Amino acid sequence: MLQDFLSSVQTEVKSRIKDIIGESNPIEKSMAYTSMLPSKMVRAGLVIASGEANTNIDKSSLVNMACAIEMMHSYSLIHDDLPCMDDDDIRRNSPSNHVVFGEANAVLAGDALQALAFQVIAEDEKLDDGQKIKAIKLLSSACGKNGMVYGQHLDIENENNEHTTQLDLEQIHHLKTGRLIECSILMGQISSSINLDDQKKLELFSQKIGLAFQIKDDVLDIVGNIEKLGKNKLSDIKNDKSTYVKIVGLENAIERYESLTQDALLLLRNVSYDNDEQTDKLENLANYIINRES
Amino acid sequence: MLQDFLSSVQTEVKSRIKDIIGESNPIEKSMAYTSMLPSKMVRAGLVIASGEANTNIDKSSLVNMACAIEMMHSYSLIHDDLPCMDDDDIRRNSPSNHVVFGEANAVLAGDALQALAFQVIAEDEKLDDGQKIKAIKLLSSACGKNGMVYGQHLDIENENNEHTTQLDLEQIHHLKTGRLIECSILMGQISSSINLDDQKKLELFSQKIGLAFQIKDDVLDIVGNIEKLGKNKLSDIKNDKSTYVKIVGLENAIERYESLTQDALLLLRNVSYDNDEQTDKLENLANYIINRES
Repeated sequence: MLQDFLSSVQTEVKSRIKDIIGESNPIEKSMAYTSMLPSKMVRAGLVIASGEANTNIDKSSLVNMACAIEMMHSYSLIHDDLPCMDDDDIRRNSPSNHVVFGEANAVLAGDALQALAFQVIAEDEKLDDGQKIKAIKLLSSACGKNGMVYGQHLDIENENNEHTTQLDLEQIHHLKTGRLIECSILMGQISSSINLDDQKKLELFSQKIGLAFQIKDDVLDIVGNIEKLGKNKLSDIKNDKSTYVKIVGLENAIERYESLTQDALLLLRNVSYDNDEQTDKLENLANYIINRES
Repeated sequence: MLQDFLSSVQTEVKSRIKDIIGESNPIEKSMAYTSMLPSKMVRAGLVIASGEANTNIDKSSLVNMACAIEMMHSYSLIHDDLPCMDDDDIRRNSPSNHVVFGEANAVLAGDALQALAFQVIAEDEKLDDGQKIKAIKLLSSACGKNGMVYGQHLDIENENNEHTTQLDLEQIHHLKTGRLIECSILMGQISSSINLDDQKKLELFSQKIGLAFQIKDDVLDIVGNIEKLGKNKLSDIKNDKSTYVKIVGLENAIERYESLTQDALLLLRNVSYDNDEQTDKLENLANYIINRES
């Protein structure tokens, strides 16, 4: 059932992203290449799962916001893979963007994906201006100098650093991955009438799920199958990064993401929505995040 | 008098950019480095000159939009200077961003400046949500895959291309430089009540001024003094780019930007504003653009 939900999200969001990007110039082709690679689209799923029980938000607007999040994620992958960053030649079982289109076009495709993420929200036809501004505030803050970009900086600094602690790594994960996951969930709520207390719970839920997602990723990086994972699992070892598993051990890492997920679900169950279906979808997605095998 | 206006714009906009960026982490330091280099801030001047006669827009909001434009411009300079792009080690008489902070941080600082440009508009305290969305639509469209980014792609393609025509080059200039200049002028009008016909004239004025600006830049690149220009004037020759002067000759290039400016000013004088002072400031700036010596 969750697989059906995610499959339909993937189909709908990919089709919309393809339309938005187009393919009439080489930059658009480069943008579309990475955006169209097979992926789980967990972030898009979170936007839609979080928002679809809100009757005052049109499904097409949720899809547009999901596109914005996924395009922002794609841009970060393209830039992270650059030779001057993580220097990864493989992304999702395919050659990385810069391998196919060259470094200059990879930088530019990433830049244009970021601009397009904001544009698709600003040009949405159903959201009102106040909702759009809420979404753009969330997105720009999550991705910028105190969010995703700073996380990537710290992640690079972390290479060859033997003194990275568990706390350091949780901060990196929170910034680099967690902030965009949190943003996905909160974007679904831009038109909801939940009270401040419930909103705080949802933020904490998002933060815990975001961290669990990344720790699970580190675990999969060690135990996962290279074909299933779709990226060179040796990349983190090659860069001699301190991964979560390396610092706390495999068993403690698994324990940590499981307990984070349990805490997160407890928070979620205490949020009062108009519609229980919403909690169910987010709960299923949270469980999927820790049970996935790739 | 125009110098006084531009000086006050520089002081005000730089001070605000410094506040917005902060300096608490290395990415912020890298962002601030390029944003704070001495510059004319013509784009910021255009936002403010275009908008300040509109009584229903607060000066602080014009400054925020000017910051957004200048930060977008700074991000494009940082990325354009990268080794995989134009490979320029000098920008505005100082070492380029990647020379000081390394390539990875330069890519990230550019990425964060783009996010911050959208954020500063979304978080403005005086604009209403409709005005903010108008500004964000203009900015995202001007900078993206059919605007500035595509222009930079074409500019790189233009290297080593002996068959570039005058028309090709005017398209590159329009996309790479003109779109952001046009955006600066139109942003000042997001709250104005000018009619569609006048808006069209203003768009055409902006496009012509944007192109004149870039052709003047090409001319200065040839005849300008390296100290005055503040960048390595040999860079375009080194990359063997077809510059405007190379294609049409110095005299024709000068004639072209002068006639573009005259056409632009004619359009501007036919726009009906509530306030003539506005036309004067824009006219002065247009004249400054073609008369500047650096």
